[in-house]
Amino acid sequence: MMAHPIHGRIDGPIVMIGYGSIGKGSLPLIQRHIAHDPALLSVIEPNPAAAPLLAAQGITHHQIALTPDNYRAVLGGLFPDGRGFCVNLSVDTSSLDLMKFCRALGVLYIDTVVEPWAGFYFDTNDNAQRTNYALRQQVRDEKAANPGGTTAVSCCGANPGMVSWFVKEGLMILSRDLDRDDPVPADRAGWARLMQDLGVKGVHIAERDTQARAKPRPRDVFVNTWSVEGFIAEGFQPAELGWGTHETWFPDGAHRHATGCQAGIWIARPGAITRVHSWCPTPGPQFGFLVTHNEAISISDYYTLGDPAAPDFRPTCHYAYHPCDDAVLSLHEMFGAGRQQLVHEILDVDEIVTGIDELGVLIYGHAKNALWFGSRLSNAEAKMLAPDQNATGLQVTSAVLAGMVWALENPQAGIVETDEMDHARCLQIQRPYLGPVEAHYTDWTPLQDRWEHFPEDIDDTDPWQFRNVLAS
Amino acid sequence: MMAHPIHGRIDGPIVMIGYGSIGKGSLPLIQRHIAHDPALLSVIEPNPAAAPLLAAQGITHHQIALTPDNYRAVLGGLFPDGRGFCVNLSVDTSSLDLMKFCRALGVLYIDTVVEPWAGFYFDTNDNAQRTNYALRQQVRDEKAANPGGTTAVSCCGANPGMVSWFVKEGLMILSRDLDRDDPVPADRAGWARLMQDLGVKGVHIAERDTQARAKPRPRDVFVNTWSVEGFIAEGFQPAELGWGTHETWFPDGAHRHATGCQAGIWIARPGAITRVHSWCPTPGPQFGFLVTHNEAISISDYYTLGDPAAPDFRPTCHYAYHPCDDAVLSLHEMFGAGRQQLVHEILDVDEIVTGIDELGVLIYGHAKNALWFGSRLSNAEAKMLAPDQNATGLQVTSAVLAGMVWALENPQAGIVETDEMDHARCLQIQRPYLGPVEAHYTDWTPLQDRWEHFPEDIDDTDPWQFRNVLAS
Ligand SMILES: NC(=O)c1ccc[n+]([C@@H]2O[C@H](COP(=O)([O-])OP(=O)(O)OC[C@H]3O[C@@H](n4cnc5c(N)ncnc54)[C@H](O)[C@@H]3O)[C@@H](O)[C@H]2O)c1
Ligand SMILES: NC(=O)c1ccc[n+]([C@@H]2O[C@H](COP(=O)([O-])OP(=O)(O)OC[C@H]3O[C@@H](n4cnc5c(N)ncnc54)[C@H](O)[C@@H]3O)[C@@H](O)[C@H]2O)c1
Repeated sequence: MMAHPIHGRIDGPIVMIGYGSIGKGSLPLIQRHIAHDPALLSVIEPNPAAAPLLAAQGITHHQIALTPDNYRAVLGGLFPDGRGFCVNLSVDTSSLDLMKFCRALGVLYIDTVVEPWAGFYFDTNDNAQRTNYALRQQVRDEKAANPGGTTAVSCCGANPGMVSWFVKEGLMILSRDLDRDDPVPADRAGWARLMQDLGVKGVHIAERDTQARAKPRPRDVFVNTWSVEGFIAEGFQPAELGWGTHETWFPDGAHRHATGCQAGIWIARPGAITRVHSWCPTPGPQFGFLVTHNEAISISDYYTLGDPAAPDFRPTCHYAYHPCDDAVLSLHEMFGAGRQQLVHEILDVDEIVTGIDELGVLIYGHAKNALWFGSRLSNAEAKMLAPDQNATGLQVTSAVLAGMVWALENPQAGIVETDEMDHARCLQIQRPYLGPVEAHYTDWTPLQDRWEHFPEDIDDTDPWQFRNVLAS
Repeated sequence: MMAHPIHGRIDGPIVMIGYGSIGKGSLPLIQRHIAHDPALLSVIEPNPAAAPLLAAQGITHHQIALTPDNYRAVLGGLFPDGRGFCVNLSVDTSSLDLMKFCRALGVLYIDTVVEPWAGFYFDTNDNAQRTNYALRQQVRDEKAANPGGTTAVSCCGANPGMVSWFVKEGLMILSRDLDRDDPVPADRAGWARLMQDLGVKGVHIAERDTQARAKPRPRDVFVNTWSVEGFIAEGFQPAELGWGTHETWFPDGAHRHATGCQAGIWIARPGAITRVHSWCPTPGPQFGFLVTHNEAISISDYYTLGDPAAPDFRPTCHYAYHPCDDAVLSLHEMFGAGRQQLVHEILDVDEIVTGIDELGVLIYGHAKNALWFGSRLSNAEAKMLAPDQNATGLQVTSAVLAGMVWALENPQAGIVETDEMDHARCLQIQRPYLGPVEAHYTDWTPLQDRWEHFPEDIDDTDPWQFRNVLAS
């Protein structure tokens, strides 16, 4: 048995909201690395299936679903004296409301996504309102209206989350490899100038999940390696991306936003049916799905220079997600049937027989063309590193751990996104759980390996135009 | 051991060209049902791996690839006295050249596809030339130029092939169920009038293959249930369909043909990346791929009434193919990588652990909305019915058998397509190998279950417009 370093201490209650795939995996990491009073650890989880699992560990279970009506009473009761940590790993709860309430109580807060209350994703037909841009902007507006105060870490999972730290580390690697040896920037503007100076045009969150079990995907079942509900919800949101200053073309059906940071656009298509050309070390060139994600907006926003409405520099940024093969098939079935599968399965660490979650950032457009930097964690290694999760889960939960430690060390930082945190400190905590973390340069561009026999709407004078990335 | 009926007799040599998945499965059916002299049975197959398999059965193996330069010498030598049967089940050989030569020799001929010599599919960038319309038209022109004579059956597999017989049987079922009780039409015009009178607007060749093995698809391997080479080749041809008189809209990037039967159009997109909304009994609504097929043109042509250039009636017809899940993943990988996998695997009957090949015709637009009629053969049943093939193979090889028997019974019918053959006789021979052959009505239309949150270019006043079938 290895000794695990204790990175910090929580005085007061720890309340975890949601005991799904990420909650289950986060719990042992918190127990392992953060000193706390076990009697003050409890979990809010409406699913009765959690009861025996939590009882077996002697952890208090509040079997209740948070709602707009009850969250103040429930959380207020669990944090009686303005101390402790609220770890939100649920779906169907409003990150904004929970974070505001925790800050009002003086309780530290973390989540992995800006989640809305149930209904948000499907109840309106106003697509601009259904974007992550809109969800994130509410949190940014709250930060602007109420700066500082008790720390609330927004969107601190693998992505959004860890990948923002990878962008920074990747930029430093690129600086070194371009023989520039820039100092580590001290502030946001410094990071944005560094990215601009390095000649970067954009960033793909480039992921390939090859985890699989030795069993044909059952029909009418949505299979994934993390929350099926979460993936379906974001997959049906409009495709969305941070829109860089180098783009000379504008996609059909795309829209800018009337208000807010101006860093992103959305396209009137479900993201999970919108393919982009991207690249990861294992497959090389591959299709990813342009699923909307918070980090696509936050990264483009963070690295903006000049007037947000007419910036001097902004990178394009978006997700290019190749989920596990069973999820690719599940999407094909779901969009083909025009209805969601009612049975959901998350591949369990013990049934997975092969595969890795290869999750990194593809930083492109510079003198060395493109650099992929990320984690190539296998399920087999994840199994040895921590209990109760597959490789995908461990990349998320170790980011939650890192974010919690950072919050304990910076308890009065106000509302922060991972772009705004100390990436080196966070990766230091997280890295033991990421398997091989590697940098790979590639000469691939989206102009390579197009189909010869058919016309495509591409710009072959400028490889890294989004026009070339968006698949026909 | 069941006794197998002998359906006919071949005097003279039987030469099978190609000993791939379909050749391997056809051989035992021929041996079982057609009287012949085993000493006169031989196989042309360039792949050396066939040698031990054929040697073990005492079958002569000519290990050679047919080419434009050698086919006359090779076939001429094997059919010395103008008798016998040439069974072409190969890729990369010209069906047209082989059929013409066999007819000149007085040798019966059958194939399952209008195949061109190697290179055709990728060597030209003239997409109109790469269509099945163009390939088929050459055979039709040959038929017109040289009517009658020795029978050569063109495109007699499952599809193209059997499905043309299903259309006729399906029309008769529909007539009965509409309480019309039309007599079986006696000629082409009669069949076309019947289809028109029944109110049919079009036909999907609607297939769902659920066969799978208990092993994750290996990366960089194209896995299918029949010829990978054949599927890749047709998948990279332009999407193509027979274009019906009820269509009020014309697809972006679609083209008509300058010459020929005028029954079809092609779209400047690879078929295997072009999705359509379709329906099969097992999944209900599903995506199919609009892969070009000979029958899409032949069926629309056969059922045309009036001037081909401005017809009174013509049905829309196209393939809506959901191949096995491993092939869906293979396509996603291939198009995403922009290059073909070099390793190919055909799922073997013995490794398949689940699934059926559900292959039928969805006859739509009439008073009962839509009728699916087809074979729902499971791999498990295929295994009991005949050796050396999975369900997909048996649907093809039993059609080859039926076509051969029909040719023996009609040896001077000239060049024929399956639409022009006696569907009842052919299905009588084939049916013991098709598992459950069933008729299913459905009230599904392509307007059902669209995604609510995004605009789509559809016509909601007329459900069966191709505009609604083509997926966004
Ligand atoms: N940033 C990242 O990298 C990342 C990665 C994976 C997941 N996530 C997010 O983390 C969250 C959890 O993911 P998961 O895979 O564990 O999901 P999951 O679906 O496995 O679990 C979610 C849990 O939330 C519970 N829940 C539902 N409604 C609730 C309510 N009203 N109150 C309290 N709990 C409720 C559910 O019962 C379930 O147990 C999701 O929002 C997901 O989008 C983020
Ligand atoms: N109509 C249908 O329903 C249907 C269904 C399946 C297959 N097919 C067609 O049947 C054919 C065979 O399919 P398969 O699954 O057996 O394919 P396969 O790839 O398994 O086998 C094709 C065989 O042809 C051989 N071959 C290649 N070049 C040759 C040459 N120059 N001369 C002679 N032989 C050559 C190959 O070595 C191979 O063994 C293909 O054209 C395919 O498109 C039709």
